[in-house]
Amino acid sequence: MQRILCLIFALIASTAVLGDPLPSWRDTENRKVIMDFVQRVTDPEHEDFVKASERIAVFDNDGTLWAEQPFYFQGLFAFDRIREMAPDHPDWAEQTSFKAVIEHDIPSIKAMKKETLLDLALTAHGDLNTDQFSEVVTHWLAVARHPTTGRAYTDMVYQPMLELLEYLRSQGFKTFIVSGGGTGFIRTFSEPVYGIPPEQVVGSSVQAKYRSNNGQPFLEKVPQLWFINDGPGKPVGIHQHIGRRPLLAVGNSDGDFEMLEWTSARQGPSLSILIHHDDDQREWAYDKNSGVGRLNRGLGEAADRGWLLVSMKQDWNRIFPQR
Amino acid sequence: MQRILCLIFALIASTAVLGDPLPSWRDTENRKVIMDFVQRVTDPEHEDFVKASERIAVFDNDGTLWAEQPFYFQGLFAFDRIREMAPDHPDWAEQTSFKAVIEHDIPSIKAMKKETLLDLALTAHGDLNTDQFSEVVTHWLAVARHPTTGRAYTDMVYQPMLELLEYLRSQGFKTFIVSGGGTGFIRTFSEPVYGIPPEQVVGSSVQAKYRSNNGQPFLEKVPQLWFINDGPGKPVGIHQHIGRRPLLAVGNSDGDFEMLEWTSARQGPSLSILIHHDDDQREWAYDKNSGVGRLNRGLGEAADRGWLLVSMKQDWNRIFPQR
Ligand SMILES: [Ca+2]
Ligand SMILES: [Ca+2]
Repeated sequence: MQRILCLIFALIASTAVLGDPLPSWRDTENRKVIMDFVQRVTDPEHEDFVKASERIAVFDNDGTLWAEQPFYFQGLFAFDRIREMAPDHPDWAEQTSFKAVIEHDIPSIKAMKKETLLDLALTAHGDLNTDQFSEVVTHWLAVARHPTTGRAYTDMVYQPMLELLEYLRSQGFKTFIVSGGGTGFIRTFSEPVYGIPPEQVVGSSVQAKYRSNNGQPFLEKVPQLWFINDGPGKPVGIHQHIGRRPLLAVGNSDGDFEMLEWTSARQGPSLSILIHHDDDQREWAYDKNSGVGRLNRGLGEAADRGWLLVSMKQDWNRIFPQR
Repeated sequence: MQRILCLIFALIASTAVLGDPLPSWRDTENRKVIMDFVQRVTDPEHEDFVKASERIAVFDNDGTLWAEQPFYFQGLFAFDRIREMAPDHPDWAEQTSFKAVIEHDIPSIKAMKKETLLDLALTAHGDLNTDQFSEVVTHWLAVARHPTTGRAYTDMVYQPMLELLEYLRSQGFKTFIVSGGGTGFIRTFSEPVYGIPPEQVVGSSVQAKYRSNNGQPFLEKVPQLWFINDGPGKPVGIHQHIGRRPLLAVGNSDGDFEMLEWTSARQGPSLSILIHHDDDQREWAYDKNSGVGRLNRGLGEAADRGWLLVSMKQDWNRIFPQR
């Protein structure tokens, strides 16, 4: 038995040493900076060494770990759900915002105010207990297909980012999602898809209420906001949930600005990364003027702040996983 | 190198097999139930087997992991801090509640309404940024001594519970604190004292605000409640933070009732435990009528609900760690 354990141990050790941990990253300067950073903070002899318990890595989700065009995928879920609920709510046909959703009017949806979208989302996400909600999302992810690629949404994750997550974990990092999206939504797939367990997902959320039905307790989702984990809310969410300053942060939009700023202001080493969507051949190209995942301030200040700007076009030799 | 790793591996494996993981637990029925439960859920051949990622164990803090008499230790911290702040607030001398604190009037403090105590706590916990608050707590824990035992507060943790935490982790459980106390307060000592990292502490909290001072970002503690993680709030806190149903839960008061109920309602095996303070020789004896850590409903319903009632007097051969 001991012999077998030793063999397994040796095998794991040699694979880690020999394999390229980032095969979908081209041999560019950005790849070098990332790998050099990880080597420095994990080398006990290096002055930048950081003990394993402090190796917290935080990742935005939409546009950082998976795609977000033509619209945030959780939005597409909410719209599908509203269409599903519509027959029971004939009054919706008279309301502009619900009408746009029911009629698949994407330009109108994109032009909506944040508050209107939020109202739609709350309608689509409430009215269920937490277990039922997970089931509804799990079912949707299994059957829904992306309008242009025809892929399952969970197949529209970025292969280079899956490799980065795995590489960081192999180097003692603890990986977290810190997203403006819904915690409960992301948790339904974060473990099988990203290797990130539910307890390491920090997102926006509605309130929940402990209730009981014939002695069977359940948690009711109350269609009222509890926390918006976006912009200056991200460092707050990190504080409330994780309680440590990240060592590494990755985002793709101005909604990640404060999270990257907070990470960079850490005492000692840190690495802040922005994913730039500049590949309209293999994915989408958008930044300053996009309604989804707008990257304006971050794009302008990244260089001065020492943040890495990763080009999907230049730095990645593959975008999505092979099916 | 490989040889050495193998030796270390063999050593760890044999220690885990040979040593008694719970030396401070007497050989009672309760100890048997706990160990039997852990063996069943970790045995891949057993029908009660639970995969490691689902082995979530949640622990209340006050009265479960450390003592709480003559008053919750975080309360004693808050009162010390108010006395420290008092010279800058001469108006406090005229206010009944502050006056009681400044004059160490414990009976008056114990008779206060919840809202009054909360007001005092918010005053004591606000007015600092999150880093400053951690420093203040860390300093207090280093110098403050318990009024009757003369011990440091972090030496008033329960040795049998330290062993249980460690035993569960050695069996693939992830251990969390789920406390009515302040998340930020508990996080200052949870890792060195309990082996529980900050990100696995779920507690009550005030709001925080991302701010900046000359380009240096910080998180301001806003003296306004964000979440009270007590009673029916505990399952909600578990949902928002952990996102999975616990497999094992330990508490000591009616503030843990819903957490234990929620755990027991899990599909498949689960274990819910109440620590009963019944040892006035080595610790304190209190339950139904106590102002601190009241255990009334739980005491009455534990047997019917299949919850384990651990007697500090009968089940533990030692209370506090040897110094
Ligand atoms: Ca994003
Ligand atoms: Ca307690």
